[in-house]
Amino acid sequence: MDPYVIQMNGSGNLPSVVDVHVNIGGRSSMPGKAKGRKARWSVKPSDMSNKTFNPIRAIVESMKVKPNPDKTMISLSIGDPTVFGNLPTDPEVTQAMKDALDSGKYNGYAPSIGYLSSREEIASYYHCPEAPLEAKDVILTSGCSQAIELCLAVLANPGQNILVPRPGFSLYRTLAESMGIEIKLYNLLPEKSWEADLKQLESLIDEKTACLIVNNPSNPCGSVFSRSHLQKILAVAARQCVPILADEIYGDMVFSDSKFEPLATLSSNVPILSCGGLAKRWLVPGWRLGWILIHDRKGIFGNEIRDGLVKLSQRILGPCTIVQGALKSILHRTTQEFFQDTLSFLKSNADLCYGALAAIPGLRPVRPSGAMYLMVEIEMEHFPEFENDVEFTERLVAEQSVHCLPATCFEYPNFFRVVITVPEVMMLEACSRIQEFCEQHYHSAEGSHEECDK
Amino acid sequence: MDPYVIQMNGSGNLPSVVDVHVNIGGRSSMPGKAKGRKARWSVKPSDMSNKTFNPIRAIVESMKVKPNPDKTMISLSIGDPTVFGNLPTDPEVTQAMKDALDSGKYNGYAPSIGYLSSREEIASYYHCPEAPLEAKDVILTSGCSQAIELCLAVLANPGQNILVPRPGFSLYRTLAESMGIEIKLYNLLPEKSWEADLKQLESLIDEKTACLIVNNPSNPCGSVFSRSHLQKILAVAARQCVPILADEIYGDMVFSDSKFEPLATLSSNVPILSCGGLAKRWLVPGWRLGWILIHDRKGIFGNEIRDGLVKLSQRILGPCTIVQGALKSILHRTTQEFFQDTLSFLKSNADLCYGALAAIPGLRPVRPSGAMYLMVEIEMEHFPEFENDVEFTERLVAEQSVHCLPATCFEYPNFFRVVITVPEVMMLEACSRIQEFCEQHYHSAEGSHEECDK
Repeated sequence: MDPYVIQMNGSGNLPSVVDVHVNIGGRSSMPGKAKGRKARWSVKPSDMSNKTFNPIRAIVESMKVKPNPDKTMISLSIGDPTVFGNLPTDPEVTQAMKDALDSGKYNGYAPSIGYLSSREEIASYYHCPEAPLEAKDVILTSGCSQAIELCLAVLANPGQNILVPRPGFSLYRTLAESMGIEIKLYNLLPEKSWEADLKQLESLIDEKTACLIVNNPSNPCGSVFSRSHLQKILAVAARQCVPILADEIYGDMVFSDSKFEPLATLSSNVPILSCGGLAKRWLVPGWRLGWILIHDRKGIFGNEIRDGLVKLSQRILGPCTIVQGALKSILHRTTQEFFQDTLSFLKSNADLCYGALAAIPGLRPVRPSGAMYLMVEIEMEHFPEFENDVEFTERLVAEQSVHCLPATCFEYPNFFRVVITVPEVMMLEACSRIQEFCEQHYHSAEGSHEECDK
Repeated sequence: MDPYVIQMNGSGNLPSVVDVHVNIGGRSSMPGKAKGRKARWSVKPSDMSNKTFNPIRAIVESMKVKPNPDKTMISLSIGDPTVFGNLPTDPEVTQAMKDALDSGKYNGYAPSIGYLSSREEIASYYHCPEAPLEAKDVILTSGCSQAIELCLAVLANPGQNILVPRPGFSLYRTLAESMGIEIKLYNLLPEKSWEADLKQLESLIDEKTACLIVNNPSNPCGSVFSRSHLQKILAVAARQCVPILADEIYGDMVFSDSKFEPLATLSSNVPILSCGGLAKRWLVPGWRLGWILIHDRKGIFGNEIRDGLVKLSQRILGPCTIVQGALKSILHRTTQEFFQDTLSFLKSNADLCYGALAAIPGLRPVRPSGAMYLMVEIEMEHFPEFENDVEFTERLVAEQSVHCLPATCFEYPNFFRVVITVPEVMMLEACSRIQEFCEQHYHSAEGSHEECDK
């Protein structure tokens, strides 16, 4: 009997597939039987999906975050500046999108690396004499996440390693491990405003090191590297011959007393892939418009790495064409006032939060200089009730309905991260609740400095 | 000397990094030297990027496609319905996007699998009694390409294989091979309106087969499988215990004499991941809004595959939030007239093109029933000047300025693909040029049927 001819059942209706399966007889008559076919269903997720691990999700999901029902919840945990409605994007940005829609010109496929005209706009916006850019040096991506993904995918093979800051953004680990790339953590030093421990960083480099990730300004630290520190990092990369992935998504988001130096402007020999996007500076993280800027003035990446990035971009094509089409107007028409307003708000909130938390016994905030975050050390010896930062922040939610991410999410236990994009009144209220919480749980540690002084 | 202290040069300025590199002395004094550090720069693209191969790009780029300067170029090669401006999207779709922008609610991050409300809308739009859907069964993606990528990434490990139609969309190969997944080609039969050769298909299945890709309606064939043929495919999958990836991006894009049957509505036991998106039916391929519909009524995928998809979605997050926010209005407000107009235009162009090409000696078009394509067999024995379809289409450009993709791009030599979304007058002109081209190059083959009859 031909198993590919469906048997009609008595009623003359087409049988369901279940009927087909039954009607066509016992398995012994099936073709393909001898070929090691599967005897029963067994569909398992791939190794890659099993290796795709998001520490934030894992930690937050396992936390007991039931807020105190008597207090409204204040979430200082999500790095999304749009959540509270106090930081809308510039109206010019919205208008640019509408114009792109109305033009009808941006509904079709763009090249997988983005429209040439859009790449030209990015190139000229970020061009500077020390780090020149042309359209060919720009690849548009579906958010900065895909920019980082493509960079790692082109630079590293499974079994190689990359250098990642600790504390640092968890996506580096998530992406690398999903691709079988090992991560090695180099330390940022809170006592040095989160500068990298260069000796320790350099000691991690071996012949399997595919790249060094430099995140400046930093999530979660809110720190901004000085020119001279960046030069020292570049010197390490230069003498170890390790290319750099510069995650500069918070580029230009620095407070008035600091200066953002694009890494590529400080080097003429280290090949750098700089990742950025509209997400943070233009306050539209959901729009998923990111980019890679290829800086390779010595031709070390050469055409091979460029072609590799282009090929990888063809796997899922680029970002939404409407945003691409709006890019020129977004870059040209967003006002300086918009950026200044955002930054002065962030700076004011940062000062406010830093001041309030610095006054709380048992906490040691580190003053930020940019981005949207602030890291706070918990002097755990003064909070013996809590085993670690996860438990500390868990209880902070339970008692005060204030949610901060334990810095274990960023590989940095005994700290927590505060998001400073919330409205000022909420920032103040959150700090006062954190104070109440700490006062209730603070114990002068035996043998501590204070006690010895008595 | 501490290599991490930058030496000031005579002028007191901070040195450039090149200076740093020189100033800090010979390499022998550098830390890390003993650890197998790299002696010189060598940055090579990863195996993954080397394995990422886009046959269309490779073939088209190697083609000599210099058009005839005396004839305007007519491109029938790109599967993008927006290229010629004759197929704009519904004004309601554009309006939905503007409303989403104006609301200010869709600038922040969405969950990586998409807003719950947007997933609910897709679920209810595609829900039917035979294949029920809830929000939890929907994952929004950056275009249908990412939907297919996530499905392959969750179902298959390197070293496993997937079954892919021949002729078929080249992205399956591109994605699979980039991930180290082998592809096995099952044949579609032009003489059977491109139905699958089920015996040959089933003979390819072995214990390493991770999934079967069914593309219906088909790119490049423009074919639409009948209910009974789909049932036969499902029967193979059921008895071989192979899950199906249904690429249904052209779903509902079928001409009036055919019916599109979503694969999942015909099976209650084969687990199916159905991939779709706004691209083709709503004529906005650049917007990159795709989805995966998880059909798993027997729980064979179970939570593991669902969780795997969620985890993989977190690598680069989902599609643009403005399009997500507009989804409800797009689905509800797009008029039936819009869909009907598109389809009757496509059907009319398909008839016109089929009729014209069928009358040309040496060509054998296969009548399409849906999508936006038509495949044409070249009776190569009548065109002895040309070695293959690549050369045939190359010369067609050179002489007639008509560009069609050689079906070698789709693993199917001696055919070419015609895109039927071009304006009617262009379609007619293209056909008449193809006719002229064929008449000029046609040779009655020796020993052919015509000659024997004489």
